[in-house]
Parts: sequence; structure tokens; C-alpha cells
Amino acid sequence: MQIVKVKMPHHPYEVQIASGQLNGTFMTGLISRYNSVSDYVIITDAQIFGLYSDWLTDRNVIIVASGESSKCFSMLENVLEQMASYQLTRNGLVIAFGGGVIGDLAGFAASVYKRGIRWIGVPTTLLSMVDSSVGGKVAVNLRAGKNLAGAFHQPEAVFIDPVMLDTLDKREVSNGLAEMVKLGVALDKDYFEALERFPIEKVFSAHELTSHEAERWSDLIRRACEIKAEIVASDERDTGRRMLLNFGHTIGHAIERYDSYRERLHGEAVAMGMWLKCRIAHSEGFISADVLLRIGCLLDRCGLKRTLPPMEIDAFRSLLEGIGHDKKQDHQIHEGQVNWVVLRGLGSSTLASLPYHEMMNKLEEAYKE
Amino acid sequence: MQIVKVKMPHHPYEVQIASGQLNGTFMTGLISRYNSVSDYVIITDAQIFGLYSDWLTDRNVIIVASGESSKCFSMLENVLEQMASYQLTRNGLVIAFGGGVIGDLAGFAASVYKRGIRWIGVPTTLLSMVDSSVGGKVAVNLRAGKNLAGAFHQPEAVFIDPVMLDTLDKREVSNGLAEMVKLGVALDKDYFEALERFPIEKVFSAHELTSHEAERWSDLIRRACEIKAEIVASDERDTGRRMLLNFGHTIGHAIERYDSYRERLHGEAVAMGMWLKCRIAHSEGFISADVLLRIGCLLDRCGLKRTLPPMEIDAFRSLLEGIGHDKKQDHQIHEGQVNWVVLRGLGSSTLASLPYHEMMNKLEEAYKE
Repeated sequence: MQIVKVKMPHHPYEVQIASGQLNGTFMTGLISRYNSVSDYVIITDAQIFGLYSDWLTDRNVIIVASGESSKCFSMLENVLEQMASYQLTRNGLVIAFGGGVIGDLAGFAASVYKRGIRWIGVPTTLLSMVDSSVGGKVAVNLRAGKNLAGAFHQPEAVFIDPVMLDTLDKREVSNGLAEMVKLGVALDKDYFEALERFPIEKVFSAHELTSHEAERWSDLIRRACEIKAEIVASDERDTGRRMLLNFGHTIGHAIERYDSYRERLHGEAVAMGMWLKCRIAHSEGFISADVLLRIGCLLDRCGLKRTLPPMEIDAFRSLLEGIGHDKKQDHQIHEGQVNWVVLRGLGSSTLASLPYHEMMNKLEEAYKE
Repeated sequence: MQIVKVKMPHHPYEVQIASGQLNGTFMTGLISRYNSVSDYVIITDAQIFGLYSDWLTDRNVIIVASGESSKCFSMLENVLEQMASYQLTRNGLVIAFGGGVIGDLAGFAASVYKRGIRWIGVPTTLLSMVDSSVGGKVAVNLRAGKNLAGAFHQPEAVFIDPVMLDTLDKREVSNGLAEMVKLGVALDKDYFEALERFPIEKVFSAHELTSHEAERWSDLIRRACEIKAEIVASDERDTGRRMLLNFGHTIGHAIERYDSYRERLHGEAVAMGMWLKCRIAHSEGFISADVLLRIGCLLDRCGLKRTLPPMEIDAFRSLLEGIGHDKKQDHQIHEGQVNWVVLRGLGSSTLASLPYHEMMNKLEEAYKE
């Protein structure tokens, strides 16, 4: 078992990573360790329920439809009503068993039910293991934008079992790898190099993980959680250093909005945003051609497209306007100034503030090159 | 101006009470003191908007229907979407301008919008001035029960102008007085006696408040806020001493549920619950017949009915079952034990834990007497 201590000031907790730990017995143990026999609910989606129904039947389970569309207000209300119908008390426990959508929805439901009850995360996708398992950001979408209603609500603990990666398709694995590459590129050169050494290609040949492979996954997931935990603990409410984690995300979000969150997964959009930022860093002399090549190569090996689909410059501009549209809403952009993560070298980045139009010019230049 | 410092551990704030302070200029000042020109919304209801439309037009206003039915999930979503359409940022400000429903709805919207933004309370009813202005409890109702989804989200400040009491009808004033009497009976003998000395009858003869009367109201409101603030600051999350504030509320809530929140206002139901508790305290020797008489007399003068409507004992039992029904849901009732506020003397109470069936017997005895 590997343990990451997430040292949130008012609510420290642990991420526990062990391969083969999750099964019906574990789930029973989890409930009895944290709560009384009946005072809990497991929130999951239809797909996960299908995969693990043998552990989940005869338990207090709330099942929502799979996919991003469940991260909405009416589903949140529905989940809360079901929690009430299970007579969950203020001492009750929510177990979020699923990917990022489930973590966000169930964590948010826990944060508002009776003004806040405890929750535990059991992430099942690589992206949710390395990203949302640390930091306590939970939310649902509004029509006006993603994650606009939410809370900071730290879990009691997070349990990760890399063996679950077996059930993911290739695209889902790439989706998580994108955030891992981001951590390496923007924050930790050693981690970047560990990813370079990892036999990523083998991951994509569908097979049951060997115990050796599961151990290597555990190492990489643990380290990702550690890097994120170190930053998040110093800036829970996302007003300073935590913004470094947004490397590649401003343009990534614009790409997601541009295709209405349909065509691309989050990690796929972030990979494109990241690559554009890396090219800017190269053209400004912060990283060498060699480093740029290594980053490009790693993204390729992760199965992530680097370049935006061929589009006319006008279409690119309208994509960028997605950022402009977000201008007043996004805390990253304030009074015409953008908080912008600058890559200073492999594994090293800083926050800078620059005028909105300057950011637009840089992005347009990098796209045209 | 009178000021109550609410010393919440992580978020101290002030309640400022001054008669005649609230008008259009004040509102403009409030916005510019706390925020930029456009980065705010005022949330109010149709009735308040009708009364103060001359201050509110040309501002960022969100108007909801008057009444408890607005404290629901779909209205919360609607309000959040409107906040987004005003392009409120993470630095934005919500001003809750109205009674308890508006404070609860707008405060909760502020607590989840972009994972929490600041808010200011401008309560307009006596009940919201003396009760919800202190403590930061915000919520909406679920179908399964009142206030089941919410947060603890302390405001930046609360501004109270007793002159607003002019616009309230008699029943609304009684509604607020009930919680003031509760504070006196359960927690502060001096406050009880101050209420006894207050010419309550004059309040009910519709007239513009003289400045002397407004001052006396200010004193009483300030003292109510102080008593509550002292308790709440020591127990923000309502797990210990704060429960003393629930004096009369267990039975009060049962009465409200019994008539589906239609016939009686909150304070009216609490007054009945309180009276039943006082009679139990008398029969158990904690308060004298004289004190019981004084409490009854004060409730009468406040225009509050003390006794439950004549009902068969069977109907009373089914009303009590309302509490039983709530048994597993209510944090006050845990594993067959009830947290029960015991009146030990005028202005003095303690928490005790007693078996559920014993509470039921006491209540039934007191009702039959």
C-alpha cells in the first residue's frame, strides 16, 4: 500500500493506493470502519454498477446515468432526495464510486446534504485517480458553464486500486495520462522522466495488468497525487499557486467549449492546449528544441493528438473568443489582465499576468507557425 | 449605530443596526464599499421589490416569487443561472435583501456559485433580523424535508434597519417576537425582562415608528443578535451548545409539518412548542407558577397563541409521530435517544439526552393537563 498525505489545513486526509484492494469485502470494511451499518450511501453510475454489481447489490446504492450529462442540477436534486429517502443522518457517509463525474456529483451532494456530511472517494478512471482525488473541488454544471456551482469539500479518504484500469478503454487511459504529462511538464522534471521510462505502449494492448505493471502504475499515480497535494495544500481555494495546475487548461477549456464538450475528452483538449503553450515557451527561448521534441514524443506515445484539427484562422479566432467570452467570468482573467502559466523550463513554471490581447496574439502566432 | 460582533472562528463579521440607514444611497455605498461597480447582484422577492423599487431599478437585481415555495432547488438553479448571466466573478458580491426565505436562498446561492462567493444580508422581517442574521445557516428545502440542502456560509456583514418593521403586518411582527421570547426564556433572564418592559401593544397599532421606538427596537434586536452570536460562535456546526437555540423547536417543527407549513408561521409554531416545554418545566419543579404565568402573559402580549388547537388525543399523537417520523433523519435524535433542551429556570437551560418514548410521554402528559 502506498499512502499520500494530503495536508489540507483544516482537513488533512490520505489517498491510499494498493492494487487488488477493492472488492466486496473491502467495501463492507470501508462502511463499518467509517460508519454504522445503515448510515451510508454509495453513489455510482450505471456502467460501474454493471461492472461491480456483485459487490453492490443489497447495499444503499444510488445509480445515476453514465456521462457528463449527469453532472447537472436536476440530478443533484434527485440524488439528495434519494439520500434523504435512505434516511441518511448528519453522521452519514457518502461513498463516491466512479469517475470524475461521480466524484464531482457525489462530493457536491455530500457537501450540501444537511449542510455537509462526510464522503469517501473511490475513483475508477485514471483521470479521477490522478486529478480529482486530490483537492476537494466538487461541482455540477450550469447551462451557463461547467462547474459553476460547487464547493471545496475535502473527502475523509480516497482509495485507489490500479487494477481498475483494466476496465478502461484506451481513450480513457490517454485522458488520464494527459494530466500526468501536464504535472511532469509544468511542475516536476523527474516525474516527466519517469513517464518517459514507463512502457506506455504496453498499456494500450488490452490485457490484465501483471502485478509488476500494477506496481508501476501505483508509483506513477502516487507521485501524481503527491505533486498535486503539495500545491493544493498551500492554496486550497485556488487563488495563487494552485493556478499552476491550470497549465494548458485555458486553451483546453476553449477547445472543449468550441465543440460543446462532445468530440473531445478533457485530457485530449488539455493536451492540445499544453502543446500550444510548449511551443510558445520554445519560441520565447524557455525550452530547447530537444525538450520540445521530448514533450511531443511523450504526448504521441500517450495516444494524445497534439495539434488542433486543421482549421481556418477565422475558426481559430472564434475558438479563442471562447476565452474572451469567458473573460469576465473566469477568475483567471481580471480587468483585461490574464493569469497565465509560463513554462520556464521542463518541470518549471510560474504565474504571470499579461494583457488579454497579448495572450491572444501569442496563441495566434503559435497556431500559425 | 449599534454593532454586534459575531466572532465566528474563521470568519468574524458584524451586524450593524441603525434606524433610517437603509435607502438607495446606502445601497450604492454598500456596493462600492464591498465591490466594483458591476460585480454584484441583489437578490430579493417580488414584495420587497414592490416596496423599494425606487432604489432597485437599474441595478443588477434578481427577483424571486415571495414566499416559502421559492426556497426550492429549481429556484436555486434559476438564481445561479441569473448570477452567471450577470457575469458575476469569484470576487463578486451577493446582497440578500428580504426576509428569511431570501436570506436562505441567496446565502446558499452565494455559497455554491463558483464554489463560494461573498454575501451581505439585509434582512427585512423581524424574524430574519433576530434569527437568521446570525450564524450563517443557509439552505433550501427538499421534498423530503425543510432545509435539507444547505451550507454554513457566514456573510461579510449584516445591515439591519428597524424602520423596515413599519412595513410588516402584525402577524409578521409576532413571528419574530416568538424567537425573541425564546432567547429570553431559555437563555437570558434580563432579556426576558426587557421584553416584559417593552410596550409591545403599541407595536401593533399601525403607525410610523417614532425615533424613540426605533431606538428601543434597535436595543432589543441588538441584544437578540448578541445572545445568539455568543452561542453560535462557540459551536458553528451545531453539534453542541447551539442546540439550546432549538428550545421549543422539536414540537414546533412537528406542528409545522402537521399542517404542511401552511396554517402557521414558524414563530407561531415555536411559541406553542415553547409553551408545552415551559409547562413540563413547571410540572417538574424547574420554574414556579409565577414564572410560568409571566411567560404565558408575555406570549399573549406578543399576539402568540400558546395552546395547540383543541384536538383529540389521537390527532395529537399523530402530530407527535411527526417527530418520530423524523427520528432517524434529525441529528437531535440518535439511536432512540433525543437531545432535549431542559428549562432549568427562567433564562437558563441545558441539554439532556433522554429516550424517545420518555420525551413522547412527557409531551403527551403536558398536552393532556
